[in-house]
Amino acid sequence: MADEKKLVEDITSMDVDFAQWYTDVVRKAELCDYSSMKGCMVLEPAGYAIWEMIQQNLDKRFKDTDVVNCAMPMFIPESLLQKEKDHVEGFAPEVAWVTHGGLEPLQEKCCVRPTSETLFCDYYAKKIHSYRDLPKLQNQWCSVVRWEKTTRPFLRSREFWWQEGHTAHATAEEAQERTEQMLNVYADFCESDLAIPVVKGQKTEKEKFAGAIATYTIEALMHDGQALQCGTSHNFGDGFARAFDIQYTDKENKLQYVHQTSWGMTTRMIGAMIMVHGDNQGLKLPPHIAPTQVMIVPIMQHKEGVLDKANEIKAMLKKADVRVKVDDRDKTPGFKFADSEMRGIPVRLEIGPRDIQAGTAVLVRRDTNEKKVVELANLEAEVKELLEAIQANMYATAKAHVDNHTFAAKTIDEMEEILDKNTGFVKAMWCGCRECEDQVKEKTGATSRCMPFAQESLAETCINCGKPAKKMVYWGRAY
Amino acid sequence: MADEKKLVEDITSMDVDFAQWYTDVVRKAELCDYSSMKGCMVLEPAGYAIWEMIQQNLDKRFKDTDVVNCAMPMFIPESLLQKEKDHVEGFAPEVAWVTHGGLEPLQEKCCVRPTSETLFCDYYAKKIHSYRDLPKLQNQWCSVVRWEKTTRPFLRSREFWWQEGHTAHATAEEAQERTEQMLNVYADFCESDLAIPVVKGQKTEKEKFAGAIATYTIEALMHDGQALQCGTSHNFGDGFARAFDIQYTDKENKLQYVHQTSWGMTTRMIGAMIMVHGDNQGLKLPPHIAPTQVMIVPIMQHKEGVLDKANEIKAMLKKADVRVKVDDRDKTPGFKFADSEMRGIPVRLEIGPRDIQAGTAVLVRRDTNEKKVVELANLEAEVKELLEAIQANMYATAKAHVDNHTFAAKTIDEMEEILDKNTGFVKAMWCGCRECEDQVKEKTGATSRCMPFAQESLAETCINCGKPAKKMVYWGRAY
Repeated sequence: MADEKKLVEDITSMDVDFAQWYTDVVRKAELCDYSSMKGCMVLEPAGYAIWEMIQQNLDKRFKDTDVVNCAMPMFIPESLLQKEKDHVEGFAPEVAWVTHGGLEPLQEKCCVRPTSETLFCDYYAKKIHSYRDLPKLQNQWCSVVRWEKTTRPFLRSREFWWQEGHTAHATAEEAQERTEQMLNVYADFCESDLAIPVVKGQKTEKEKFAGAIATYTIEALMHDGQALQCGTSHNFGDGFARAFDIQYTDKENKLQYVHQTSWGMTTRMIGAMIMVHGDNQGLKLPPHIAPTQVMIVPIMQHKEGVLDKANEIKAMLKKADVRVKVDDRDKTPGFKFADSEMRGIPVRLEIGPRDIQAGTAVLVRRDTNEKKVVELANLEAEVKELLEAIQANMYATAKAHVDNHTFAAKTIDEMEEILDKNTGFVKAMWCGCRECEDQVKEKTGATSRCMPFAQESLAETCINCGKPAKKMVYWGRAY
Repeated sequence: MADEKKLVEDITSMDVDFAQWYTDVVRKAELCDYSSMKGCMVLEPAGYAIWEMIQQNLDKRFKDTDVVNCAMPMFIPESLLQKEKDHVEGFAPEVAWVTHGGLEPLQEKCCVRPTSETLFCDYYAKKIHSYRDLPKLQNQWCSVVRWEKTTRPFLRSREFWWQEGHTAHATAEEAQERTEQMLNVYADFCESDLAIPVVKGQKTEKEKFAGAIATYTIEALMHDGQALQCGTSHNFGDGFARAFDIQYTDKENKLQYVHQTSWGMTTRMIGAMIMVHGDNQGLKLPPHIAPTQVMIVPIMQHKEGVLDKANEIKAMLKKADVRVKVDDRDKTPGFKFADSEMRGIPVRLEIGPRDIQAGTAVLVRRDTNEKKVVELANLEAEVKELLEAIQANMYATAKAHVDNHTFAAKTIDEMEEILDKNTGFVKAMWCGCRECEDQVKEKTGATSRCMPFAQESLAETCINCGKPAKKMVYWGRAY
């Protein structure tokens, strides 16, 4: 019994130290590891398998909206990065510079892409001539580099993996539609598949992307009440098109600038799943995204027929498109139970000699720990139903948590008071000026997360200056 | 008719200038484009779609042998690169160096990975303790950077996309088995799916990978008779394990070094498909790997019912897992025929008012230009059969080309004579010494491609020095 005890003991309680709990889960579940390259992660097989599930799911959603994949170079020549003024100001302080190729200094230094707007613009300028060439709807899966000072597994690292979509359109309306469409794809993916409820809205001027005319975001609340930005979608208007001279001839034979968008989601979503769903036993993965949905644990596996039955069940479930494994390691069932829980596998299936004789198996839910004895004859239907029930329950639990941790404040004092006692989102009215936004942050530690699409009128005046309010804002302390 | 003429005219005849023909096909089929970053490619959507097919196919084959995916950092600190002496000597002259992060110089410069042995070793040294931790069978899909002086689309560029598998084993035998197993996976993939016949063999000491004790390769012959290395698999023995101190406790509680392998295949395979299968009409893709297998071209598409029927056929074939599109652009059928041919789509399906009335459609093979009128009622079966027939014929055609361009030489004069008149592989005996290998290259321009597993005894003596021969070698001028 020493084994399984150790497994759980090593995870710090989330109530004692949430940050340490998070790190423990990441390390014990072998999701990612530090590397000799400071600030850079190794995505270990268990973490990468989750990323592959995210990729498959998102990629299908993108392709359903006619997006095609491609790959841009990982390097950006300095002169190319500098073409759009706001963009270079935003990114230059945090890029990694390549100065030598082989043994020789480069004539022009280049950076490793922090994001690829400039590369796509460079490409589109060559490929777009006529209205017939539009729209361009391209995406790439890659890693990007931003030289961060402090890093945390999945949440902030010098290299991270993501997808970045880049589109070019004939009209401003089409670009705005695409910007919102992709935000909705992200929101639906988060809610339906990651079981993470999100708030959809627009970023303030201060928080928008360098070079965008508008940035939209989905924001989620972690178990500790801190906010996490989960995905962003940017409308660039024709700013990049003017800087990179991306013009097309319209149907009336007139030259026009294109209108562009970009949108991205990153490996940070693995961190979000840990912090929204995890508990003191470890990771808890939503069935839609779990690389392994069912772990079969044979009981008394040395007894004749037990492993055979376990493998037979595995083959049967696999055929029904359930992602399933058998844990046939030379370990105690207790160890395997704790191990499967710690790794977040949604359903554990126990099968031993007595179950086989009775024609039954035991299903145990990771989300509620409930046990259910089911007939082997109904197993496929029972498992599928259970997986959907777990998915729905995980979403409902997370949604209740957000609802219970979303507060409304009418004065700055009230907001401070709320944030002293609680963590979570605070809804409050804002006049729209940068000064008030900065002052709210200074006074409360909370940043503006977004101006939600679903606006409410909580008061007539700005929470900070008392002038007429323009927008209701979600505020929160954030990762 | 101006349109379709232009489409074909732009492709230089392969008999006039093979190199220019190759570049024309790459550009006209929009597979890849140059970028403002010198020596780096943009993988355009049509090229990336082929790469996605290669990835899916190979990834499934890897996973069937228990390999799991992961992601390592893209940077290697200088001190890590230097740990294995042969390895750093081989790669240091061609790596890109990052010297600054943001506005500050780095304490230790790092390179962008040219390959990731050192990163996997660094990771394995931390993760491997006991024989229970073995084997480690990991792979990553990524791009790598080698600062080449001269570049060519797909064949040689400063950044290229690949997969690199890295394994660690308890014994030397297991490592050798895995090295050969993965070479066989590559060979089977090339022959069964890319329709490219390959010669399997071992590289000479001179040509082996920096740090390996043995490198195995598959070599293919392009249409112009030049050889192309298509995939390599390396056995490292315990060399890296000693340099990186990767040890495990065996069942007798004794410390042992692990034995390692690595193996890779790259986007160069897209270049191989172009040069093995392409013709003066453009690209010719094998059905197993073609992102679009059937292009439906509606004839008189403005007539009522034609486009509906085309889309109905598309839906029917799609349901049968055929990758199919309808070309409903406002262009002439002639343009669409040439366009579909140029892009290498294996089957064209023509459907017009008269076909609809007759309950038939016309299928045209890209490989032979043969036309066949088929009953719509049998369409699914006809298309599937045709795709397999094309796949088989493309392999047979390529195989005949290799057979017709593989020669045997007994003297160096004979070899020079053969290579003056022909291009292709020349089989010849070799004593095994580096000096002879260098001299053969000087005299004939051909490099040793491999010592094939299928050895023949062509003569008793080395083709160059006349001393007793040890191995039969395939020689060839190579990309």
